[in-house]
Amino acid sequence: MNKTRLEAFSDGVLAIIITIMVLEIKVPHGTEWSVLIPLIPVSLSYVLSFLFIGIYWGNHHHLMHSVKKVTSGMILANLNLLFWLSLVPFGTGWMGENNFEANAVLVYGVILLLCGLAFTIFQKQIEKNLHESVELKNAFSSLTKKGIVSLITYSTAIVMAYVSTIISGLLFLAVAIMWLIPDQKIEKAVNDLK
Amino acid sequence: MNKTRLEAFSDGVLAIIITIMVLEIKVPHGTEWSVLIPLIPVSLSYVLSFLFIGIYWGNHHHLMHSVKKVTSGMILANLNLLFWLSLVPFGTGWMGENNFEANAVLVYGVILLLCGLAFTIFQKQIEKNLHESVELKNAFSSLTKKGIVSLITYSTAIVMAYVSTIISGLLFLAVAIMWLIPDQKIEKAVNDLK
Amino acid sequence: MNKTRLEAFSDGVLAIIITIMVLEIKVPHGTEWSVLIPLIPVSLSYVLSFLFIGIYWGNHHHLMHSVKKVTSGMILANLNLLFWLSLVPFGTGWMGENNFEANAVLVYGVILLLCGLAFTIFQKQIEKNLHESVELKNAFSSLTKKGIVSLITYSTAIVMAYVSTIISGLLFLAVAIMWLIPDQKIEKAVNDLK
Amino acid sequence: MNKTRLEAFSDGVLAIIITIMVLEIKVPHGTEWSVLIPLIPVSLSYVLSFLFIGIYWGNHHHLMHSVKKVTSGMILANLNLLFWLSLVPFGTGWMGENNFEANAVLVYGVILLLCGLAFTIFQKQIEKNLHESVELKNAFSSLTKKGIVSLITYSTAIVMAYVSTIISGLLFLAVAIMWLIPDQKIEKAVNDLK
Repeated sequence: MNKTRLEAFSDGVLAIIITIMVLEIKVPHGTEWSVLIPLIPVSLSYVLSFLFIGIYWGNHHHLMHSVKKVTSGMILANLNLLFWLSLVPFGTGWMGENNFEANAVLVYGVILLLCGLAFTIFQKQIEKNLHESVELKNAFSSLTKKGIVSLITYSTAIVMAYVSTIISGLLFLAVAIMWLIPDQKIEKAVNDLK
Repeated sequence: MNKTRLEAFSDGVLAIIITIMVLEIKVPHGTEWSVLIPLIPVSLSYVLSFLFIGIYWGNHHHLMHSVKKVTSGMILANLNLLFWLSLVPFGTGWMGENNFEANAVLVYGVILLLCGLAFTIFQKQIEKNLHESVELKNAFSSLTKKGIVSLITYSTAIVMAYVSTIISGLLFLAVAIMWLIPDQKIEKAVNDLK
Repeated sequence: MNKTRLEAFSDGVLAIIITIMVLEIKVPHGTEWSVLIPLIPVSLSYVLSFLFIGIYWGNHHHLMHSVKKVTSGMILANLNLLFWLSLVPFGTGWMGENNFEANAVLVYGVILLLCGLAFTIFQKQIEKNLHESVELKNAFSSLTKKGIVSLITYSTAIVMAYVSTIISGLLFLAVAIMWLIPDQKIEKAVNDLK
Repeated sequence: MNKTRLEAFSDGVLAIIITIMVLEIKVPHGTEWSVLIPLIPVSLSYVLSFLFIGIYWGNHHHLMHSVKKVTSGMILANLNLLFWLSLVPFGTGWMGENNFEANAVLVYGVILLLCGLAFTIFQKQIEKNLHESVELKNAFSSLTKKGIVSLITYSTAIVMAYVSTIISGLLFLAVAIMWLIPDQKIEKAVNDLK
């Protein structure tokens, strides 16, 4: 019950972040098919960010489910996570409106990296107050591994931005797909709690 | 309890989608009655989309009520549904600002069709984890029938866009009205659960 | 439990309506005090609408508290109420940006009138499914009286818009103040329920 | 249960306020690094306001946790608090877009001061209906002390705006940091309640 509000506030912020991004796909003047072409990069950029915010929501959901009581540390780590996530629409817009140019792709990668770090900090705060459950510990160490792979991939994508932004984009997508594959371990561990 | 957050997140996104659309009805300069006339197509477009999002919210509410536990499949199918619904404000704005021209009506129909398909996928995910209840099964098959009728009507409206956009518009409206008529079956089945 | 989502969705929409209106107070260029002067009518308009949406939220809260189970009728009546409330930001912006000119004040009054009617319809749907409680019935008849007074005052304000928009504005304010005075009856009746 | 909606509505408004502010960091044209420089003051302004809204959310959370039943007084005091908080995005935008000029810093300080006063009023409304708990009373008097320090610091920052806006900015930051340091007393008192 104590955690309901932390979840509700986070859900609110995440829901608004997702829907703010769609505003970057600006309604064009005219209805010839050609007016839709300039919207393609912005739309691709939106799809990618929608996936990331959706994944963060899913993981946030799973993490919070294993929480017994909310601590001040969690509240601060959660605010920190929401802060970096709130910059995603800016990164998405800048990258999309500038046709995935190197600098914008790099900044997008840095924002994702900082979100990833903030999520790791949040996860550590929650691990301090975990239910006693071997399954849950395994699930968390699986999350940690995925987290490390993500941070390394983001870093690679940032470096690659000046070589080929297409490679950077594919690396971002690879991270998203890795997270979209449902993780049996955490789901089972969380469901077994209650 | 597990499903509270999936509902809360979806409610948040749907609430924002509905209220973002009203921003397309831009406050005009001047206060002569004539400045309101150009707002008529945008307003009609808003009314139609408000109905659709409202109906999706109502059906989402009913479906979730019959869920015992949230699976990864549901989470993904729900994110997929929210993604397509998040494009409704764009379709609404494009159609409204361009006075219901054929291409815009066609795109609006395609978005509605994809939302309908995403809802069907979401419904199938939920049916996999249903309470054992004959009434609920009947209610779901009634939902499925309405869903198929909707998809066929959307497809017809898309094709008709180049013949007469008025017919397309009326077909959209017909789908909305079909869903607005309260369905005794699903309501009863859901209420009997608890 | 069944009503949680109807409340959550309505809260979301009302929260967004309130915060969308503040976007009409556009950040001016320059920091001389004089740049703030043109913001005065928009700000007054915002204060008035903030009060109205806040009051609707409070009354919605009280009404829903007395509901045993959510019916399709309530869902539709609630969507209808949210639709008219979603037009309040438009009315607020138009009135504020045009310095309370007669036509804009009239439209604002009409929107408030339609919101008031929609609320009455919503209330009637809830009265059909009321807990058996004499106190609650008294509280509802007190709400109905206030509702009728509001509708009459809105209508008067609409007519007065062409005589004096100041009188119309004061009438709107009078309705808001009437509702802001806490109603002991409904509060007591609702609290006694549980 | 009665207080769920007051929390949900407030969470919604606070979540939207936080995410609306990020829209002031407008996506620039071009991707040279130099286009990011003009965004620095707006971003600093955003960070500061994000902290304040986040802190208000945390304190609101703690206060509400100690509430037994929601009164009309709380509803009104909460609406009053949300009203002043809803002006934070305007103050943030004006200050950020004008590079922390004296008048804008002063107005920002005044908005924070009024938010602080509104929070104090809200707190007093809650203290009237407190659980019988010595610890909770101590926690509240600790909150009151912090509140008074904040109000004095805001007032000093307002006066200092014409001397040095840097000092004002640092004073705002000092208040934020004071509140970010977790308060063991209130956390313990609130957790002991249940």
